[in-house]
Amino acid sequence: MAVSALSTIKFLKQPTSHAWVDRAIAHLDIILLDHSHCERKAAGVALNLMFRYPSYEKLVRQLTAIAREELEHFEQVNQKLEERNIPMGPLAAPPYGAGLNAHIRRNEPERLLDTLLVSALIEARSHERLGLLADRCPDPDLAKFYRNLMASEARHYGIYWVLATTYFDITVVNPRLEELSILESELLATLHPEPRIHS
Amino acid sequence: MAVSALSTIKFLKQPTSHAWVDRAIAHLDIILLDHSHCERKAAGVALNLMFRYPSYEKLVRQLTAIAREELEHFEQVNQKLEERNIPMGPLAAPPYGAGLNAHIRRNEPERLLDTLLVSALIEARSHERLGLLADRCPDPDLAKFYRNLMASEARHYGIYWVLATTYFDITVVNPRLEELSILESELLATLHPEPRIHS
Repeated sequence: MAVSALSTIKFLKQPTSHAWVDRAIAHLDIILLDHSHCERKAAGVALNLMFRYPSYEKLVRQLTAIAREELEHFEQVNQKLEERNIPMGPLAAPPYGAGLNAHIRRNEPERLLDTLLVSALIEARSHERLGLLADRCPDPDLAKFYRNLMASEARHYGIYWVLATTYFDITVVNPRLEELSILESELLATLHPEPRIHS
Repeated sequence: MAVSALSTIKFLKQPTSHAWVDRAIAHLDIILLDHSHCERKAAGVALNLMFRYPSYEKLVRQLTAIAREELEHFEQVNQKLEERNIPMGPLAAPPYGAGLNAHIRRNEPERLLDTLLVSALIEARSHERLGLLADRCPDPDLAKFYRNLMASEARHYGIYWVLATTYFDITVVNPRLEELSILESELLATLHPEPRIHS
């Protein structure tokens, strides 16, 4: 059952379920720790792309800005962990990221296109879910925090989308986004038993 | 022959040669491009450590700040490349980084200690060499740029050193630093034929 305004998140084929929101709200400490990992991973993805395509000036410039911003968010989430006495530490990842990566084709230029579109989809989903947390979180401080972050996620998926259309023709980008967005929603169709941002 | 005040860079066994400075000044465009790669790689090293030791809160906090600053410098160097119409692109790395990494022991906790000390040494060498470029560079704008960046490198090697002494006893850290600093200077004893920050 839909709980988010899909019109603003055109990339997502299926909205997040109520069951995810309920589980997340019941485990806000774990969600916050997982969120910290998500921000660090997002910075890592941007940095890896910068390493892989050092001659792509627009990509390098835009992803440097994204990586810096993800690290700033990582610091902010870690500050929330500290305020709540939640120790930092490892956390098993849900199958979502690996499931999406499995669909990234291994040869260029398809690898670049798929990586950009998968990143766009993850950012779009993050945007949707941080919005749901902002709406439903009973802790006003955390709710405000999520509200502030979700705008950045929206900008990020826009940037990944623009990069895809910079290096690839729209007639190539659109059908591949359609395929990947179906896969993205399928990966979330069965709720992962552990509370995670992308469970 | 010494060209830098070693007293301020206690980690370095041997100062940089005049030959390196002469070659760098004669190839400032390549040095600037290599510098861009160095800043991105430095951000990558910090991020990798954050990934590998997610429970080490002090390490994660300090390296997040370093990674953010390296990305800011990366942007600044890329701005200089753009102003000078130097295209961004790949550049073969000199043997310095791989040579140092070969001495990082593979088992924990030695791996962490060696990684922190190798990072400290690279930052210390960068500090020394950016200082030499600041002193000798005939372009006043670039000289000022190097002068501004060298202070950060000094802070960074201090942070890596403090992290080493946070997680390891000083009686373990000092002899290992002594060994690695000898190796670091030996790697630079023969000038690499290509002009690089760490040739």
